[in-house]
Amino acid sequence: MKKIINDVANVEEEMILGLVKAAPQKLRKLDYGTIVVREPKQEDKVALVSGGGSGHEPAHGGYVGEGMLDCAVAGTVFTSPTPDQVLEGIKAVATDKGVLCIVKNYTGDVMNFEMAIEMAADEGIKADYVVVNDDVAVKDSLYTTGRRGVAGTIFVHKIAGAKAAEGASLEEVKAAAEKVIANVRSMGMAIEPCTVPAAGKPGFELSDTEMEIGIGIHGEPGTHREALGTADSIAKMLLDSILADLDYTGSDVVVLVNGMGGTPLMELYIVNNFVQDYLKEKGIRVYDTMVGNYMTSIEMAGFSLTLLRLDDEMKKLYDAKADTLAWKK
Amino acid sequence: MKKIINDVANVEEEMILGLVKAAPQKLRKLDYGTIVVREPKQEDKVALVSGGGSGHEPAHGGYVGEGMLDCAVAGTVFTSPTPDQVLEGIKAVATDKGVLCIVKNYTGDVMNFEMAIEMAADEGIKADYVVVNDDVAVKDSLYTTGRRGVAGTIFVHKIAGAKAAEGASLEEVKAAAEKVIANVRSMGMAIEPCTVPAAGKPGFELSDTEMEIGIGIHGEPGTHREALGTADSIAKMLLDSILADLDYTGSDVVVLVNGMGGTPLMELYIVNNFVQDYLKEKGIRVYDTMVGNYMTSIEMAGFSLTLLRLDDEMKKLYDAKADTLAWKK
Repeated sequence: MKKIINDVANVEEEMILGLVKAAPQKLRKLDYGTIVVREPKQEDKVALVSGGGSGHEPAHGGYVGEGMLDCAVAGTVFTSPTPDQVLEGIKAVATDKGVLCIVKNYTGDVMNFEMAIEMAADEGIKADYVVVNDDVAVKDSLYTTGRRGVAGTIFVHKIAGAKAAEGASLEEVKAAAEKVIANVRSMGMAIEPCTVPAAGKPGFELSDTEMEIGIGIHGEPGTHREALGTADSIAKMLLDSILADLDYTGSDVVVLVNGMGGTPLMELYIVNNFVQDYLKEKGIRVYDTMVGNYMTSIEMAGFSLTLLRLDDEMKKLYDAKADTLAWKK
Repeated sequence: MKKIINDVANVEEEMILGLVKAAPQKLRKLDYGTIVVREPKQEDKVALVSGGGSGHEPAHGGYVGEGMLDCAVAGTVFTSPTPDQVLEGIKAVATDKGVLCIVKNYTGDVMNFEMAIEMAADEGIKADYVVVNDDVAVKDSLYTTGRRGVAGTIFVHKIAGAKAAEGASLEEVKAAAEKVIANVRSMGMAIEPCTVPAAGKPGFELSDTEMEIGIGIHGEPGTHREALGTADSIAKMLLDSILADLDYTGSDVVVLVNGMGGTPLMELYIVNNFVQDYLKEKGIRVYDTMVGNYMTSIEMAGFSLTLLRLDDEMKKLYDAKADTLAWKK
């Protein structure tokens, strides 16, 4: 394992400290655990809380700020935060309008966020949650019942965040989040695995001529392995899987070409070149495009594609101001 | 070599097409070569042109847009664009106020931009240039006489770009660029090399326990090799080299923790955690911090640190609006 770190035991703590120190006027780390909250606390809006295991940087701490999240709770690498940690995050940002938790669909995350929400209710906090499940690659997996939540989660942060910033009610913010979830689909692949610092070795191994299709974001293998194809053929395969699941024909979409952490932008742009042409050919209109590292698996080399269908209300929310480390609008 | 590409011969072309297609209302690729220009053309300001070899994505096409560059000219990977290509870029964006070229200090880049400026003068275009040389690692190298230009270049784009957007004269924009160059210093390191697609093998090799200090951004080896240290010890070494070169004590600085392309954000945040504490200890005030992939060497794993000293005028220009793919403010 070759990494630029200090001590395997301190990776999460030092990372969150370093993230907060990149915007110390706008972010704060709670003393209790690796939890990032927005500064100053916002009182007149529904508070948005997300989180999950570490290793997905900039998710989720990089999305805390104006127009997006109020709090991101990070567990250790690829491990759900505990209910206690999530509860601390909820309590730190809760308002009278309530709290919406945005949870990626992994068994541990869903269970721990649910428990934290119950514990928060016992303390008089009105909290609810949505579960993001945008990954079309797998139905059930070692980590999930139903589909996994992957890069499409950032669109839930953005659009529900904008709705909350407008002063909407908890029910309205939840409805905006659910609308994103209903309209977002993703799929990913990798040419190199990642290494969890505490494990010290990669989650799977690939030869120089192989690629892994349908990877998730926790270093686990994908659905199957193939001979490494061209950028165009890989992008086509992922898009065809997404389009077979949800018919985007005639829609306005946001495209996310997401790097898994170790993928050079050069390759992501080459992928985007194909993606844009292919969507045009399919009669799908591109409203906006994002290319970069938005939801990663540490240093995994590979990418995922995400399509989000937008209606007029979602366009307005998508375009609204956001001021976070990883996404400014 | 394991890469997500189609054909080694088309890497640069497809990458620039993919970059432009990420913002087709705001960017255009010239038919002549891998040249990105801002859309629509701006007439009432000094036009800013930068460029160099490909492989540094998002530099420089990712910095074309409002408040930054008007044109980025890309050569093949790690190879200067030709004078003809630079001339085409200059001609596409030239205004009556003139053109300022921002050139990283590499022998080929400087020579080709100088020739292009002479050719532009022959066609009646008033053009000038500045040379960025922020890398404190080496004085002379295989590629350079004097210091190399590396990640600090993006601050020249930003601050000269903001000055140009104010309607300043060519002389004033050049002076703003020169002020950045006088106040910016960088140094980098790597734990994994990168592979130029057309070469097919890495520019150097490192064992699992080694790191390369003082790397540039063209895949070349650095000044020396050491046993891989901790994130903190590496960051201290780089900062000490920067601070020995320019005394930033008592200054307000922007910090750039720049990933070389394959480095996970997790590691960059861990580095930032040390950097912020160390600068505080040294009596250096941090005005703003950027953490991410801003000037890369394809998929090299490693990072560089850059410090930019700001006076009040530079702060205003730094804070001015920018709307590009890679930097929004």
